[in-house]
Amino acid sequence: MFSVIQSIVIDLSLGEAMHSLASALFPICRSITGNGLRESLRIISSEIPLEIREVASGTAVFDWEVPREWNISDAYIKNSKGEKILDFRNSNLHVLNYSIPVHQHVTLAELKKHLHYDKEHPEWIPYRTSYYKEEWGFCMSYNQYCGLEDEMYEVCIDSTLMPGSLTYGECFIQGELSDEVLISSHICHPSLANDNLSGVSVATMIARKLLQSKPRYSYRFLFIPGTIGAITWLAQNEHVVPRIKHGLVASLLGGPGPFTYKKSRRGDTEIDQVAEFVLKSKSSTNNVIDFFPYGYDERQYCSPGFNLAVGCLSRTPFGQYDEYHTSADNLEYITTASLEDSYHTYLEIINVLESNKKYINVNPKCEPQLGRRGLYNQQGGDNDNQNFQLAALWILNLSDGEHTLVSICQKSKMSFNSINFAAQKLLECGLLREPDSDELPSRENSPLSLLR
Amino acid sequence: MFSVIQSIVIDLSLGEAMHSLASALFPICRSITGNGLRESLRIISSEIPLEIREVASGTAVFDWEVPREWNISDAYIKNSKGEKILDFRNSNLHVLNYSIPVHQHVTLAELKKHLHYDKEHPEWIPYRTSYYKEEWGFCMSYNQYCGLEDEMYEVCIDSTLMPGSLTYGECFIQGELSDEVLISSHICHPSLANDNLSGVSVATMIARKLLQSKPRYSYRFLFIPGTIGAITWLAQNEHVVPRIKHGLVASLLGGPGPFTYKKSRRGDTEIDQVAEFVLKSKSSTNNVIDFFPYGYDERQYCSPGFNLAVGCLSRTPFGQYDEYHTSADNLEYITTASLEDSYHTYLEIINVLESNKKYINVNPKCEPQLGRRGLYNQQGGDNDNQNFQLAALWILNLSDGEHTLVSICQKSKMSFNSINFAAQKLLECGLLREPDSDELPSRENSPLSLLR
Amino acid sequence: MFSVIQSIVIDLSLGEAMHSLASALFPICRSITGNGLRESLRIISSEIPLEIREVASGTAVFDWEVPREWNISDAYIKNSKGEKILDFRNSNLHVLNYSIPVHQHVTLAELKKHLHYDKEHPEWIPYRTSYYKEEWGFCMSYNQYCGLEDEMYEVCIDSTLMPGSLTYGECFIQGELSDEVLISSHICHPSLANDNLSGVSVATMIARKLLQSKPRYSYRFLFIPGTIGAITWLAQNEHVVPRIKHGLVASLLGGPGPFTYKKSRRGDTEIDQVAEFVLKSKSSTNNVIDFFPYGYDERQYCSPGFNLAVGCLSRTPFGQYDEYHTSADNLEYITTASLEDSYHTYLEIINVLESNKKYINVNPKCEPQLGRRGLYNQQGGDNDNQNFQLAALWILNLSDGEHTLVSICQKSKMSFNSINFAAQKLLECGLLREPDSDELPSRENSPLSLLR
Repeated sequence: MFSVIQSIVIDLSLGEAMHSLASALFPICRSITGNGLRESLRIISSEIPLEIREVASGTAVFDWEVPREWNISDAYIKNSKGEKILDFRNSNLHVLNYSIPVHQHVTLAELKKHLHYDKEHPEWIPYRTSYYKEEWGFCMSYNQYCGLEDEMYEVCIDSTLMPGSLTYGECFIQGELSDEVLISSHICHPSLANDNLSGVSVATMIARKLLQSKPRYSYRFLFIPGTIGAITWLAQNEHVVPRIKHGLVASLLGGPGPFTYKKSRRGDTEIDQVAEFVLKSKSSTNNVIDFFPYGYDERQYCSPGFNLAVGCLSRTPFGQYDEYHTSADNLEYITTASLEDSYHTYLEIINVLESNKKYINVNPKCEPQLGRRGLYNQQGGDNDNQNFQLAALWILNLSDGEHTLVSICQKSKMSFNSINFAAQKLLECGLLREPDSDELPSRENSPLSLLR
Repeated sequence: MFSVIQSIVIDLSLGEAMHSLASALFPICRSITGNGLRESLRIISSEIPLEIREVASGTAVFDWEVPREWNISDAYIKNSKGEKILDFRNSNLHVLNYSIPVHQHVTLAELKKHLHYDKEHPEWIPYRTSYYKEEWGFCMSYNQYCGLEDEMYEVCIDSTLMPGSLTYGECFIQGELSDEVLISSHICHPSLANDNLSGVSVATMIARKLLQSKPRYSYRFLFIPGTIGAITWLAQNEHVVPRIKHGLVASLLGGPGPFTYKKSRRGDTEIDQVAEFVLKSKSSTNNVIDFFPYGYDERQYCSPGFNLAVGCLSRTPFGQYDEYHTSADNLEYITTASLEDSYHTYLEIINVLESNKKYINVNPKCEPQLGRRGLYNQQGGDNDNQNFQLAALWILNLSDGEHTLVSICQKSKMSFNSINFAAQKLLECGLLREPDSDELPSRENSPLSLLR
Repeated sequence: MFSVIQSIVIDLSLGEAMHSLASALFPICRSITGNGLRESLRIISSEIPLEIREVASGTAVFDWEVPREWNISDAYIKNSKGEKILDFRNSNLHVLNYSIPVHQHVTLAELKKHLHYDKEHPEWIPYRTSYYKEEWGFCMSYNQYCGLEDEMYEVCIDSTLMPGSLTYGECFIQGELSDEVLISSHICHPSLANDNLSGVSVATMIARKLLQSKPRYSYRFLFIPGTIGAITWLAQNEHVVPRIKHGLVASLLGGPGPFTYKKSRRGDTEIDQVAEFVLKSKSSTNNVIDFFPYGYDERQYCSPGFNLAVGCLSRTPFGQYDEYHTSADNLEYITTASLEDSYHTYLEIINVLESNKKYINVNPKCEPQLGRRGLYNQQGGDNDNQNFQLAALWILNLSDGEHTLVSICQKSKMSFNSINFAAQKLLECGLLREPDSDELPSRENSPLSLLR
């Protein structure tokens, strides 16, 4: 049996490894296109095999088209004395992301039309973007904004917006089955640690881990710019979509707070059941919430024409912590402990998913005789004798091709370890079997019929 | 888009108009048949076009037959001095409704066998009927009853029970669709203001309002005697029944108290969903209760052989206010404010019903690009920019031909105004379309299969 | 109409009769096979006609085979002075049930390996068995155990384990229908009064009662050794299984405490609905719990290959009272009052089951006219006029071939007496009819399709 978790050796270094990866990626100025993305994917590709794809600007992707490529080499504001009062080299959040180039002298009044700040947190630089409206702008702390003198300023944003391509990375791990699990992380945010270098780092390390195993499912890791990246990937990979049976959007995994799992649009899929089961088994403070059509790329995966079984697993959700989309979402905000805990939680979900089969009781009429098979005083799982027997009885009673192991856990209120251990013992001695393919309901995706 | 509510101009007069109509109808002595009904329908027909139908006594109507016509010209009790101690001309509640004629001299003991009173409310005259058992009788206050001397009395009820007809009124408003909404009010009660001149007045004014518009649905207003009137109408109009898609029984709409919506027998129909949604949006004190086979004419519309999507929307329900079926249910008991509020609530339900469509997202794969259609900073509904976008995303995500706008409101917890406004904008710019007829589940009625 | 309860005449003697039967059975040393079983069934057969069956040792029964026959004539422990310090004749619990024979001299240390006791209840002898592992052993109180001297002991168990047969008893009562109700009691425990002579006694008396009536359903009472008996019966009677429409495992019915009904595996069968309805009508302290694959012979009846509509109705469940499986579960522990109450509760469930039909409203369009059939002022059930009418309206409204009388009770919150009384009146006057066989969903059992 494939077990990811049990093969982890040196936990101590894991959180540090993920934090290091985030630190390496942090200074790069990323956007939805451009060299920042390429450089980031190059760093990730030194950790895991990554296919880096380029999709040309102007390519039609459903209702959208791939935008121009944005690159930036410098940006600053100088006061009338020629002093740089704001320098892109200090923080790439200082520039409105995807800003058009500008170089001119402006009055304070004119400048203020192009300044973004956050009154609520006067010391932090906010993160702002303007992807779909041509604008230039700077972001600064509210304190700095308040101290601006009424004089002339030189503003310079040395950026380019030109035909080029949208870049994304993909790591595919072949499993026994062609059925796939999708793990998707957005990688477009510059110098924000929790949103989403934490997700990128955790996803990278999970891919590393899975590469060392032979999983049942195939796994597809996407490192893509938010929204337009997911749309582009889906448009270019529609033939792959039917193979995606389960998926998670990985984001906001380095901060404090319990986990929040946001269900897929369908709400009752296996990944929804497994994620809820694992989170609730770990802590009653973890949250499970219904799908809503806002957030990260689950918006695209769960659009009604795809309606994939993809949820989003974060810690504190977007917009619910003060540091969100500010310069305070930095490398201090994310901790090795949180990253490690997130990593283990993802792996536990994956582990349960890998083992979450439906079996068939070979002797469905009355109980089989456990005693003569040496199963009467068997110990295992995290339980004593009696629990082994109870687990075996639950499995035998519910192994009718309808119940997964997780649904047996939920009915029996027993742990996955206990149920899975007993199931393996029952398999070994021939009391259970795997169903034939024609005994299982087809597992295909269900985009809504009207929308084909 | 058809909007009833927005076109109301002078609200102030509405409540007064409804109270005036009730006042004009109040003095008439109605019963389940007879001239009182005809006179009442004549008054209503001066407000709205009304087809007045006569169905001959003895006509078979399902398990019943149309009863004889009852008319009354006078009634009194005189004491031994010849003084009228009870006079029908003071209150037509004084006579047991549908009483057979009588003229004789009786002892107090004999008289008492024919007297009805209400100990609980000693000052009020109760309302009593005897439609299906031949009886004569008088109703008086318990105080008067207690003061009766032991002497001979002359009792006179100058009524007739003769072959004639049952009379009802019907106002049909043709809409775009042949699908109909039924609004049914009972009109058989004499001199009871809340039960049900309030319902009659509100229904009349709603019909007036709808006559000024071009609604999507066709509307059928019935003004009928309770029970036997509904049975007669259904028996004579079975060919119409399949067109009735939604319906409300309008009663008890002028008194105080929050609304109570009693669901249709099916309990999960669109009118049930819409009425509950509107009532709960207006006030958490409004009530929604399950169907039970007692009450007003929903009993007939929801009999298992019809099983129509007809609920009953009242304020305080029958039997739950002291004045119910007594002389205290008079013109002071009903207020212009309650009548107006009831009118607006009915219209709001109708308005939502008219707009409560299912749409199809034309670009179901991924989100469409709202920005290039000028929908990114759109304002509307009762909300700001951000809410417009969220409303648009909810609609796009759920417009799969399965979800009505009301069900999108329920999932998103957004107002109908916001969702409907955004839906219209999305329609305008071609991101939504109406489903073809073959994409919708057939909307036919579902009488239970065994009962055909 | 068949009514069991109403024909009971002399309640006083019932509890005493059941206690007497338990007393007669108590001293016999039963096991899963052997003469103790035969003697017990002989006693029961003097109360009701019982077919006593013998199934030869070694017969294959699904995954098991019928075990050897166990008989015992004597057993004791003597100390070094030759004094009997433990004597089987004082309590047949003293011998490990199904113990292999032994006769030897042993040290205290060796003896202790074969002694069973219960520290928690130092005065009681525990009941222990070893059916499927060859062992010899004695059970004694912990107090006695502590007083054992360090000396040599003579141990003797004069038992035999030889090819023979497994014995069970079956009482079949033919009803109008071939559809069967199964009442199953385990009869293998020696000298334990509540577990399960109480169940045996109650089942016997119910069978006596049903033999005096002409029930609608056929009834099958099984008196069988636990687990292997149920497995053997099912294996030998597979052709009967499809006729079993409802069933109850009767156990633990003489002690204190409210009832606990453990649902069938399917959880929504008619017996589940009826048992819950009756128990909750009787007392809010009664419990209804979900199925779990541990307990009594419902484990076999509800194995996925049979998946029968069989629940278990006990008072305080197994393992939840201190006296369980000890010498304190004796004839004092069970009371005539509890036995009687259990008997009446079983009969009430049977009575409701017998009457729990689905009817068809003959006039489904609108209400029928109750008045001209004399049903307007009808009294009946446990209610006054008004309740009769309300009951009639509920039945007419819901008699669509989908609702049983119990489900009408649940929707109307009226008593079974009221609803059933009104239903009989409506039947009598032709307003209801029984459905034709093709109007009802087939009532067959539903073993899970994958498991055929």
